[in-house]
Amino acid sequence: MIKLTELSQDIQDAVAATREKVAKLHAELPANNLVVWTAGNVSERVPGADLFVIKPSGVRYDELSAEVMVVCTMDGEKIEDGTPARLSPSSDTAAHAYVYRHMPEVGGVVHTHSTYATAFAAVHQPIPCVLTMMGDEFGGEVPVGPFAIIGDDSIGRGIVETLKDSRSPAVLMANHGPFTIGKDATAAVKAAVMVEEVARTVAAARTLGEPVPVAQEHIDSLYDRYQNVYGQK
Amino acid sequence: MIKLTELSQDIQDAVAATREKVAKLHAELPANNLVVWTAGNVSERVPGADLFVIKPSGVRYDELSAEVMVVCTMDGEKIEDGTPARLSPSSDTAAHAYVYRHMPEVGGVVHTHSTYATAFAAVHQPIPCVLTMMGDEFGGEVPVGPFAIIGDDSIGRGIVETLKDSRSPAVLMANHGPFTIGKDATAAVKAAVMVEEVARTVAAARTLGEPVPVAQEHIDSLYDRYQNVYGQK
Amino acid sequence: MIKLTELSQDIQDAVAATREKVAKLHAELPANNLVVWTAGNVSERVPGADLFVIKPSGVRYDELSAEVMVVCTMDGEKIEDGTPARLSPSSDTAAHAYVYRHMPEVGGVVHTHSTYATAFAAVHQPIPCVLTMMGDEFGGEVPVGPFAIIGDDSIGRGIVETLKDSRSPAVLMANHGPFTIGKDATAAVKAAVMVEEVARTVAAARTLGEPVPVAQEHIDSLYDRYQNVYGQK
Amino acid sequence: MIKLTELSQDIQDAVAATREKVAKLHAELPANNLVVWTAGNVSERVPGADLFVIKPSGVRYDELSAEVMVVCTMDGEKIEDGTPARLSPSSDTAAHAYVYRHMPEVGGVVHTHSTYATAFAAVHQPIPCVLTMMGDEFGGEVPVGPFAIIGDDSIGRGIVETLKDSRSPAVLMANHGPFTIGKDATAAVKAAVMVEEVARTVAAARTLGEPVPVAQEHIDSLYDRYQNVYGQK
Repeated sequence: MIKLTELSQDIQDAVAATREKVAKLHAELPANNLVVWTAGNVSERVPGADLFVIKPSGVRYDELSAEVMVVCTMDGEKIEDGTPARLSPSSDTAAHAYVYRHMPEVGGVVHTHSTYATAFAAVHQPIPCVLTMMGDEFGGEVPVGPFAIIGDDSIGRGIVETLKDSRSPAVLMANHGPFTIGKDATAAVKAAVMVEEVARTVAAARTLGEPVPVAQEHIDSLYDRYQNVYGQK
Repeated sequence: MIKLTELSQDIQDAVAATREKVAKLHAELPANNLVVWTAGNVSERVPGADLFVIKPSGVRYDELSAEVMVVCTMDGEKIEDGTPARLSPSSDTAAHAYVYRHMPEVGGVVHTHSTYATAFAAVHQPIPCVLTMMGDEFGGEVPVGPFAIIGDDSIGRGIVETLKDSRSPAVLMANHGPFTIGKDATAAVKAAVMVEEVARTVAAARTLGEPVPVAQEHIDSLYDRYQNVYGQK
Repeated sequence: MIKLTELSQDIQDAVAATREKVAKLHAELPANNLVVWTAGNVSERVPGADLFVIKPSGVRYDELSAEVMVVCTMDGEKIEDGTPARLSPSSDTAAHAYVYRHMPEVGGVVHTHSTYATAFAAVHQPIPCVLTMMGDEFGGEVPVGPFAIIGDDSIGRGIVETLKDSRSPAVLMANHGPFTIGKDATAAVKAAVMVEEVARTVAAARTLGEPVPVAQEHIDSLYDRYQNVYGQK
Repeated sequence: MIKLTELSQDIQDAVAATREKVAKLHAELPANNLVVWTAGNVSERVPGADLFVIKPSGVRYDELSAEVMVVCTMDGEKIEDGTPARLSPSSDTAAHAYVYRHMPEVGGVVHTHSTYATAFAAVHQPIPCVLTMMGDEFGGEVPVGPFAIIGDDSIGRGIVETLKDSRSPAVLMANHGPFTIGKDATAAVKAAVMVEEVARTVAAARTLGEPVPVAQEHIDSLYDRYQNVYGQK
């Protein structure tokens, strides 16, 4: 088993920085009402190493700190990272690892069971692109992935196969909930926040009538501007 | 009447520890938006004694502390526990006591009127198993119990008769609200949090369309893994 | 105009105590998500005097203190109470005053525009008694009052005429929102919290199916027990 | 480019005061659950100058302070205001600027994607005036504006053309979300809070039945009283 203490100092420093960041980002999940109890997890690649950092399994959010974040190889195996042996990585680790192995541009992955995104997942319906905010963030609808259960690569494969042909950084895994990706964990957390927000808004709109789709040309224009112009340089 | 101060020191210590734990767990109920005002209650068996600890009746959550938690016999009678005589145990004490007497494996019981779980109870509908999270936590649908009102054993009997043939740790008592059980009070509180979360999600899904059931074989697989593998050793 | 400083010391002390209590109870309204911005108000009779204390008009909740609470006669006229002349009593003061004049058993009144109770008011539908909690608290359905607007006694009259033949401490004034009463302001605030909670629960139930009514004999039994047995002696 | 440091001391003081106020008002948006992540923005005219102050683009709410608020001309161009060059004004700045140029009575503008107001915008439906609170605040229904996307004056023009013939300080831009106006930024923030509140209430009412309209004569009476009598002198 790989030992953290035997890796180069640069990698050890990068692991420490990533642990700090991932621990801090986990606080966004309860703060944005995306998770209850121990549900949900955030991971991020360690820059310059074939490793990623993820939440330990079944630990409450107010007990998370940089020290208990688990370091895994790209096969999703925990290394000797200084945490007690009893701290296993999240039960969704295999899915995160599969995404990192097959989508090299992805630097962060988030999974939640946020209420409204999961409601769309329960009816196997994509979230239709009826909001300019969806054009900005998702470049179209938020797609539904296949039904898959824990135990092999089927969740990871479902995420990758759904997202590889989509502009959306979010997929609604059928009967399960959203997985989101980003260039880093911050971007993936933002996508997790935004997918719940648009799911809630579109679900509310559906109780009022039939939401009016945004035309494809407008979606393209919104997506292009937002990805290239919005925010600070 | 049994006096706490006349019991063995071991039991007095166990009572003190249980009171601390139960008082602290009550804070999870408002923190997870499961209760308003004085509604809801948590109880736990005292290890090594035929006693359990429960919330006093009609007291606000911000006034709860270990000192005011009420100690009861397995018949639901308050003992001389050091609290003022005016502090009666929760009006749901008889139901908790009935569960402890008839389900020896249960160490904790929680009752709330949480919004969405109670909404399913008002229409006498079980929460169908349409989420992988429900397979994990409940091993199937969350069942509805009979209509029963306070005054005799009918609530306790309804809980026990509904749950004894179910994998679910939660029952929706008709027109009333959820009761949850667990090996200890922490597990019962978790089940109370999770039943509201899945009720809210499934209610949202129902406004979007017809939720797709999870197949029984997948429910069995999820339940088995979650009960045996999830979390830390 | 009556001057507070010319009243007996006992009454001045009672006014001071009531101001403290009413100021503090106002914090329950935003804490329980019953109000936004400056909406909503609580009042309470001053014991031993023909006066009541109410929120000043148009002041934000985080700026409320005992000192700015306005003291009014039973005709709803502000007395010289030490607050600046610019601080008028709530624009709903006439309705509170009417209730106090016509319901001597009422010691506290609360008005909010809480979301779900107001939703029932917008469709002119009572909240049907489909929850045991409603039997406990309201002794039956929560009734709808007439449409009435500010400017004369019509809101106050609508409240009194609806509640005088009801066990419910809450009335949903049509197109407007809930008014609640109690033996004191704490009881009226509790009723305001509970009416929103049951409105939200029943609205959620209605999206799932047809809520099952609680039989009248059970409502009577629940109401009797709760009013006479629940809580501490 | 105009330099802040070359303007008169009076204008520099007015800019500083407006920055403080606008920074502080931004905190109302997350506090009232109107925004997630970096969405939403508040602006206000600088008294005595052809300038306004607005949120920087893509910055999180907990990182906002008076110092990072961006100062713009009435054409929506950032001046040399002491913030780093990388801090651009909100991507909605052109819309705010258009409103200020064409509605001289407007001193503050707010934009959010608040859930229920945006849900009405997604179905292109005005919020009907079925609440006395809507008569008070909006003087009638909350209108829908045209579909328009960022890039030219079309959003600003849509806001102005919709609101210039309406008593409502809020417009629901189709598929986008609410923009609100006021005599100053505080009034515009209040309108943003209120439009979400009435949208949520009316959406809830619609799940229960058909909301009953308030008659036009009552709307007129409510609006007149509220605009002229409510609150403190």
